[in-house]
Amino acid sequence: MSAFKSPNAFADPEDSQLVADAKKERVEPAEHSFTERDVILYNLGIGATEKELQWVYEGDDEFSALPTFGVVPQFAASSGLSMDWLPNFNPAKLLHGEQYLSIKAPIPTSGELVNDVRRVVLMEVLDKGKAAAVTTIVETRDKRTGQVIFENQSTVFIRGAGGFGGKRNGNDRGAASAANAPPKRSPDAVVEEKTSHSQAALYRLSGDSNPLHILPEFAAIGGFDQPILHGLCSMGIAGKHVLKTFGPYSDIKVRFAGVVYPGETIITEMWKEGGKVIFSAKVKERGTTVLAAAAATLVEGSAKAKL
Amino acid sequence: MSAFKSPNAFADPEDSQLVADAKKERVEPAEHSFTERDVILYNLGIGATEKELQWVYEGDDEFSALPTFGVVPQFAASSGLSMDWLPNFNPAKLLHGEQYLSIKAPIPTSGELVNDVRRVVLMEVLDKGKAAAVTTIVETRDKRTGQVIFENQSTVFIRGAGGFGGKRNGNDRGAASAANAPPKRSPDAVVEEKTSHSQAALYRLSGDSNPLHILPEFAAIGGFDQPILHGLCSMGIAGKHVLKTFGPYSDIKVRFAGVVYPGETIITEMWKEGGKVIFSAKVKERGTTVLAAAAATLVEGSAKAKL
Repeated sequence: MSAFKSPNAFADPEDSQLVADAKKERVEPAEHSFTERDVILYNLGIGATEKELQWVYEGDDEFSALPTFGVVPQFAASSGLSMDWLPNFNPAKLLHGEQYLSIKAPIPTSGELVNDVRRVVLMEVLDKGKAAAVTTIVETRDKRTGQVIFENQSTVFIRGAGGFGGKRNGNDRGAASAANAPPKRSPDAVVEEKTSHSQAALYRLSGDSNPLHILPEFAAIGGFDQPILHGLCSMGIAGKHVLKTFGPYSDIKVRFAGVVYPGETIITEMWKEGGKVIFSAKVKERGTTVLAAAAATLVEGSAKAKL
Repeated sequence: MSAFKSPNAFADPEDSQLVADAKKERVEPAEHSFTERDVILYNLGIGATEKELQWVYEGDDEFSALPTFGVVPQFAASSGLSMDWLPNFNPAKLLHGEQYLSIKAPIPTSGELVNDVRRVVLMEVLDKGKAAAVTTIVETRDKRTGQVIFENQSTVFIRGAGGFGGKRNGNDRGAASAANAPPKRSPDAVVEEKTSHSQAALYRLSGDSNPLHILPEFAAIGGFDQPILHGLCSMGIAGKHVLKTFGPYSDIKVRFAGVVYPGETIITEMWKEGGKVIFSAKVKERGTTVLAAAAATLVEGSAKAKL
């Protein structure tokens, strides 16, 4: 499939008029400024500790954003797209399904970025029985140099909003839609990390202020016993485990398979397969899988990638 | 004493020329903008939890800054004053000695403030043997309405910088310099709170980025085994205990008597004496007193003040 090559490629003859119209939606480029403080706040939000000075102290020689920071600058742009065109749309039934992040250049620790909303497109609308799956793409570039730093692909599922004549199977989007089935052997590495009870309260300061993650009444409407941790926070925590174990990666993809309640322990299981780390994450206390079909592509030549 | 009545009152005939010159220092008004996110970050930094929605969720009907937030907008203004004029000045020997905060109007949850640097004055320079004590005053007002919201008085001690002919005893500055000796009876209330290991790493995002609180090598230069929690963070935590136990207060004053290492447990002991709560705080694990000569003046007529 070549759905990525140009916006025209999205005019798929299989689309219903509803879907074809939605794909035409274009949004203005969205700017995002950030400071070293925002980087530290994000890093703390995914569990960086006071001992990890490279992630929490702006004066450290190795001071840097954890790679999954790449989901932050584009978040408002990708989550701001209207879904009103879907039949029976109900925002309380929207779930973040999958996230793919590609890191295309060194991550600055402050600056002004632009999210290229020309390229925010509804790429894939799957009519899965009564659910819709909508994928949006955002390219984030340095405002001054124009260099693309991140590409994100975010897929949301909307329960009860199918039945509009979309396709039933998704496009092959390479690493963004790969199955990433773990090998049969035991994991090559396992990292365990207890989240804090205030993890979601802290993480939400990095831009996702959905009350689902802090307000018990709102979580109840979504069918949860208590507020849940942000899926992107779990992704950040597991991504940190991959980084600490195998070194830097140039892309990371996860499927959100279950929820973490703040205070629970995340166990990340990792398998190194060539230049790729396949991983999954589960909650220790309940055994629930939270991240599946997940993988990161290691940066070639880095010390740990050779392990 | 009438040292507060006008800047002229600071020209004390007892002052040496060195001190008299220093008191003349005037700094431009310093602006400080803040958002609801900054308020939440501060509240989390002094241990507000995910259950305390009025302090961590901007959508809560009772959303508010904890009262000791009042030390934040003025921090850069009050700590930025040059001390170079002191003999043998060494910044590594500077200790925050005392803090007084008066809350003069309801605290906004976002806005633009101005720290009136006309009134930032070196108010008191005590020649305590070989140490100097320097007090600065900052009035913080709403930029738009001009209403004064906070007054802060911050006293620092600089070891080894005395011997310049200052006075040996301080001015009577009312609540800001009261002895606040606890009564002989057992405390009327005791609250215990374990800080997190990353408490200082989080608190410093509210504006005090002194490496003493995060960098082990820097803490060692100051004579500490490890980075120490900010004194103003301990004050915020104890101030939260006073608020939760006795209700709102219009001023709070503490002396920083010892250090807390992040991860330790703070025990606040409180005695209600009329409209005032006298309190002290210590570290459970080591028994060290960290806040002494401390008190808060309760807001008359509030429900808990009548307890």
